[in-house]
Amino acid sequence: MTPQRLIYLDNNATTACAPEVVQAMLPFLVDQYGNPSSAHLAGRVAFRAVEDAREKMAFLLSAGKHEIFFNSGATEGNNWIFQAFVQLPSQNRKRIVVSAIEHKSVLDTAVRLRRFGFDVQLLPVTADGVVDLSQAADIITRETALVSVQYANNETGVVQPITELVELAHRVGAFFHCDAVQGLGKAQLNLTELPVDSATFSGHKIHAPKGVGVLYLCGGARNWQWEYPLAGGGQEHNIRPGTYNVPGIVGLGKAAEMLLVDLSSHIAHMATLRNSLEAQLKSRLPDCLIHGEQAPRIPNTSNVTIKGIPADILMSTLPNICVSAGSACNGNALTPSHVLTAMGCSIEGNRQSLRISFCRYNSCDDVNQFVEAVANAYHTLPKM
Amino acid sequence: MTPQRLIYLDNNATTACAPEVVQAMLPFLVDQYGNPSSAHLAGRVAFRAVEDAREKMAFLLSAGKHEIFFNSGATEGNNWIFQAFVQLPSQNRKRIVVSAIEHKSVLDTAVRLRRFGFDVQLLPVTADGVVDLSQAADIITRETALVSVQYANNETGVVQPITELVELAHRVGAFFHCDAVQGLGKAQLNLTELPVDSATFSGHKIHAPKGVGVLYLCGGARNWQWEYPLAGGGQEHNIRPGTYNVPGIVGLGKAAEMLLVDLSSHIAHMATLRNSLEAQLKSRLPDCLIHGEQAPRIPNTSNVTIKGIPADILMSTLPNICVSAGSACNGNALTPSHVLTAMGCSIEGNRQSLRISFCRYNSCDDVNQFVEAVANAYHTLPKM
Repeated sequence: MTPQRLIYLDNNATTACAPEVVQAMLPFLVDQYGNPSSAHLAGRVAFRAVEDAREKMAFLLSAGKHEIFFNSGATEGNNWIFQAFVQLPSQNRKRIVVSAIEHKSVLDTAVRLRRFGFDVQLLPVTADGVVDLSQAADIITRETALVSVQYANNETGVVQPITELVELAHRVGAFFHCDAVQGLGKAQLNLTELPVDSATFSGHKIHAPKGVGVLYLCGGARNWQWEYPLAGGGQEHNIRPGTYNVPGIVGLGKAAEMLLVDLSSHIAHMATLRNSLEAQLKSRLPDCLIHGEQAPRIPNTSNVTIKGIPADILMSTLPNICVSAGSACNGNALTPSHVLTAMGCSIEGNRQSLRISFCRYNSCDDVNQFVEAVANAYHTLPKM
Repeated sequence: MTPQRLIYLDNNATTACAPEVVQAMLPFLVDQYGNPSSAHLAGRVAFRAVEDAREKMAFLLSAGKHEIFFNSGATEGNNWIFQAFVQLPSQNRKRIVVSAIEHKSVLDTAVRLRRFGFDVQLLPVTADGVVDLSQAADIITRETALVSVQYANNETGVVQPITELVELAHRVGAFFHCDAVQGLGKAQLNLTELPVDSATFSGHKIHAPKGVGVLYLCGGARNWQWEYPLAGGGQEHNIRPGTYNVPGIVGLGKAAEMLLVDLSSHIAHMATLRNSLEAQLKSRLPDCLIHGEQAPRIPNTSNVTIKGIPADILMSTLPNICVSAGSACNGNALTPSHVLTAMGCSIEGNRQSLRISFCRYNSCDDVNQFVEAVANAYHTLPKM
């Protein structure tokens, strides 16, 4: 009996490094290992590699090189923005507005600010998982210091009306932060056209390694005279001190370079897979609900409630298939997803939902095998 | 003309990844790329790799597995400890004591706490760069909340009297933090015998990659009911949320495993190189002062003032040799080292000092070529 092939369809949780990314990183692990803060030759070589990666990220995002700050990932970047707001000396506005479907690193960070006297308000979403703009207009008042809404939701893939929300925020003089982790590599992100004040990205969602990310700050460090949360060796204009993760940054630069070349074709490929998946699931399973189906979505994500069978039980019968039953960041816990709950999904519907997320390396064969396995399991398992 | 071989003697700034470390990391970049927070097979494989690395680090440090928390490096870990103190609700003590020769990520972080009403005191050091214990006994009073002293200094290699300082701190009920970055891989660090309350480490100083480190918390998360500086997905018992840097953590685990096998022989090897270097420099250069020569030192570091020639000018004539003129973290800036200044070194002596730091991969040949090159340059260059 040949072992079953692993089918990985959980690319919103994390992705494999691209082989080209690993090849780009290797020299900086082994030979060109200098510290970019060192003045000698080894240091200068590493420094140039970091600046080269910064240029590629800036180009990919249509941002300025001086607006790109490397860090350890989006959790850190999201926390940074909120912590900076606490420290802002001129900050008299006391309302913080975030959507109800943000990642925990935004939602939990925002809620913590209540301790500092902030009035934290959640923006509700429609049944399709889109932030409700008319309610947002009421909630984003002149007392609002900061509005933070993600580019696309990690569980449903639903793209949020960022342009409209930025306009609402800027109209009252509020700052706009965007957790854009799930947009990168799945949408044409142009930060000149999307006038957010700050944004966060993680390398490991775009086939770069884990442990590296970018904080985008519109206007660069000069516009940001706030005290930065970390103190240390002065790296990244003091915005993010600590020895540069050179191999990680180089890997991220390579991943950005690759997206510059072929993002459009990846988007088309992932959309084909996702559409095929959803068409097949709907035709083969009697009661199957696709969350956010009518909303604009990033092309790689499908969140499906298969009525009658808890997702964790379904997936435990398919050990070679990797999809997410609930957000990966909630770990093993079977707590209902706050995203689906905010969309009005019941606890049962929540437990019966699966997130499938594709990447450029997935194939039609992955989709077909997944559907086949799920349909077979569905017809075998007892229904609730 | 054959190009000159690069001689890298700046291992206190950063080290090359060991080939074994890179080999251990590669599978987790390419094939086993799951997110440890995912419940599926790919996630569980990654989770086990992280726990395996944790076990190795714990074993190397004679610590409990539950006391090891992975993060992005020591700058983050050092900041964390100080930030946690600001947030401690029961914290009525308002004195913070750090040595005058700490790394910037401790010193600058401590100084920031003045804004929160803390009385930040610096422990002076002797001319040999050792914290003065009799003065420390006066400064560490019953009002002291936190004492933070490094294990060994990054610029001089001087080992600090941690056992005695912990005793002074604990006698008055203060917390003791140790930035032990420069001790790991250069000394037998046994955290059972060295009863610090917390300690920080960086992978890239021990031939693991940049961008990964460890925060050691005595007693583990249960003893630490403080609010952690980052909010997010709950990783590391909420002490350090954010997607695990699996390849980095695996690399760090491999580096720890290697040190478990051969730390003693590396220590002996580096001491041989360092002693040879210092003997040769003293015999070939007329006026050469070794900082902290009489103090206990880690075996790989030598900080030498070569009187008459500014270190930056000397090194600019030797582009194939990588040593540090001033701490790497001060970058290109020719600001005097705060460490040498605290030891009573003049601005001139400061500018004429070089830090040479070895690793296991350096050879006698490296030492001989370095001495030859420096001695030749010395006799050619005009003296100040």
